Amino acid sequence: MINEKAYALGSKSSVIREIFEYGKKRKSEIGEENVFDFSIGNPSVPCPKIVTESLSELINNSDPVSLHGYTSAPGDINVRKAIANYVNGTFGVNEKAENIFLTAGAAASLTVSLNAIVNEGDEVIVFAPFFPEYRVFAEKAGAALRVVKCSPPLFQPDLCELEKAVNEKTKAIIINSPNNPTGAVMSADTVEKISALLRRKEKELGSQIFIISDEPYRELIYSDKEVPYITKYYDDSIVCYSFSKSLSLPGERIGYILVSDKCKNAREVYFAICGAARSLGFVCAPALFQYIIPRCLGKTSDISVYKENRDILYNALTSFGYEVVYPDGAFYLFVKALEDDDEAFAKKARKHELLIVPSKDFGFGGYVRISYCVSTDTVKRSLDSFKKLYDEYGETQNG
Amino acid sequence: MINEKAYALGSKSSVIREIFEYGKKRKSEIGEENVFDFSIGNPSVPCPKIVTESLSELINNSDPVSLHGYTSAPGDINVRKAIANYVNGTFGVNEKAENIFLTAGAAASLTVSLNAIVNEGDEVIVFAPFFPEYRVFAEKAGAALRVVKCSPPLFQPDLCELEKAVNEKTKAIIINSPNNPTGAVMSADTVEKISALLRRKEKELGSQIFIISDEPYRELIYSDKEVPYITKYYDDSIVCYSFSKSLSLPGERIGYILVSDKCKNAREVYFAICGAARSLGFVCAPALFQYIIPRCLGKTSDISVYKENRDILYNALTSFGYEVVYPDGAFYLFVKALEDDDEAFAKKARKHELLIVPSKDFGFGGYVRISYCVSTDTVKRSLDSFKKLYDEYGETQNG
Repeated sequence: MINEKAYALGSKSSVIREIFEYGKKRKSEIGEENVFDFSIGNPSVPCPKIVTESLSELINNSDPVSLHGYTSAPGDINVRKAIANYVNGTFGVNEKAENIFLTAGAAASLTVSLNAIVNEGDEVIVFAPFFPEYRVFAEKAGAALRVVKCSPPLFQPDLCELEKAVNEKTKAIIINSPNNPTGAVMSADTVEKISALLRRKEKELGSQIFIISDEPYRELIYSDKEVPYITKYYDDSIVCYSFSKSLSLPGERIGYILVSDKCKNAREVYFAICGAARSLGFVCAPALFQYIIPRCLGKTSDISVYKENRDILYNALTSFGYEVVYPDGAFYLFVKALEDDDEAFAKKARKHELLIVPSKDFGFGGYVRISYCVSTDTVKRSLDSFKKLYDEYGETQNG
Repeated sequence: MINEKAYALGSKSSVIREIFEYGKKRKSEIGEENVFDFSIGNPSVPCPKIVTESLSELINNSDPVSLHGYTSAPGDINVRKAIANYVNGTFGVNEKAENIFLTAGAAASLTVSLNAIVNEGDEVIVFAPFFPEYRVFAEKAGAALRVVKCSPPLFQPDLCELEKAVNEKTKAIIINSPNNPTGAVMSADTVEKISALLRRKEKELGSQIFIISDEPYRELIYSDKEVPYITKYYDDSIVCYSFSKSLSLPGERIGYILVSDKCKNAREVYFAICGAARSLGFVCAPALFQYIIPRCLGKTSDISVYKENRDILYNALTSFGYEVVYPDGAFYLFVKALEDDDEAFAKKARKHELLIVPSKDFGFGGYVRISYCVSTDTVKRSLDSFKKLYDEYGETQNG
């Protein structure tokens, strides 16, 4: 009698949630330091000092009525101008403040964008493995999710499969680079090829196909590898950004949507974004956190910690014999399970106090995700358990 | 090709928006102090000191990783416990923290609640005049809006009309007291009668009908009049609360949903709320503002300013000859237009630099809304214009 889909979504514990609850229980049993919890993508490095300083300064020196008052629905215009300037200067594009809409983080950026462009019966394409909420967001907006697999070992999208998946119902493709859960970065070559394919399909089908680039991990990159900026490659593109990971502010819900000015109907799409935000109940992005953004653009938390964790884990696990996707960014390691059933493998890892997430929920079986946004000490102390887990499988195979 | 409904919502300027833009232009022409802008419901009194102090203390003394990290989706459990304790102590009810879900303000409280309970084709009843976004929120959730009028001069719902409006499709009734735009407070007697009517209808129809109580103005009350607490009167009730107006924090987006524990399927409704929030893109309510709530419960901004404004305006306008709804709460005055066409009346008011909102958009023609959340000085200096406007109509009638 109430909404069954909403009930199903809210009552069914996700796998990550179940692991989280198990972890809480286990930590209370044997001590927090003895459980190696790699389940959650919650930044472990504090926000940069400039965040705390900016917050203090605003709170102490601003008129509270305007500081905490409504901003316009798309966000404070000076904040939007600062973001446009930053994006243009950093990526060599020519985007406009009036095409930027501040949001309550990446999830809001995605739901607002999808509800702005999707009509009932449309299809949205994602590349597996993918963040499981993409399905929830797309289906709520009225679209069916169509999954195209990435190819190991580099986990770039399979373009032959993409060619087959695009049809007259395709409204958008979501890309996510650096990727959750693999940490892979999409190469400029791949982005160029996807763009060319979609441009051709738009002409063939006489339709408009958006690329939605979900990029909360853009700045979490541990090499000089470039993360291609989508609006340089493809006109009908929408960037969904969040400051959650770069500034370690996931609880504060601040991000933005940028509609490429080259999008053939940029103003219409932008207005639809304003309308979708309104109908979903987003009045404006949290005001105080809007105002710190101009001072924090281009800044990040100390990501050298994540890089060190990545290096330690990647080197150790490969030396033990694990097959690991090399991650250029984000804070996830995607590791081949030592048996076909990733859920069974993740369960066995628990015996060694390792909490890792099976890959099935990411639409791609046979792997596990290790979130290494934990202390480096935890990473180091966990290695012995990973070794034992590996050896256990070796013994089984040989025994 | 994009979503037409979202585009229509985002591209069509609302009447309030149009007045706001006109006001900006006019202020730049003749000086801010010469325009009497009564168009927007934006609190004009600063947040109480405890808000600023709590923010400072949290920012200076907390670990930023946990302060700004994700909370659980329904919000920090200690905050939810504090709210339950406050509600129970203040209103003499027995509600539970596990039925409270923190949200990004009243709009989010409403969209999440509606998306949790509504199925396509359901109906939601509102009492006119009503906050225009109710239609946007209900329709996006898949419901049709059914409007029941309130009766002047007290602006209590017309119960005969309600009796006729309730049918097997009715999923919920939204009440809003103190009311935007009238400032009227629903009497205990009215709430009791509505509750009795709905209980009877639930039995007759074999259905469940929720009362959703939208109460951002609960504490903005200028007499000893009690604002009935809905869960005392009716079991299948959901309270949608926001701290925007009571604490003057409208830009920060913090509020909550409370599902009455007496609701016959409280846990199911709560889970559906969790699911709806997830699918709409609400990950958690802004964390920093969650943590200040336990210290600020029961506190308000200095609402004596609003009371003074109300008294000055109400007394002056009635003495001039206007017909004014007596407002016990909120910060709106609902005034009968001096001609049938409220839009034409509001336009004529502009000649006297009075920016007021015609009532048509609130689903109830023939009135204007005056938002008196402005400085008392502005109120005083505006009186002469209201007098001239009244006299102008008198002259027309006599001439």
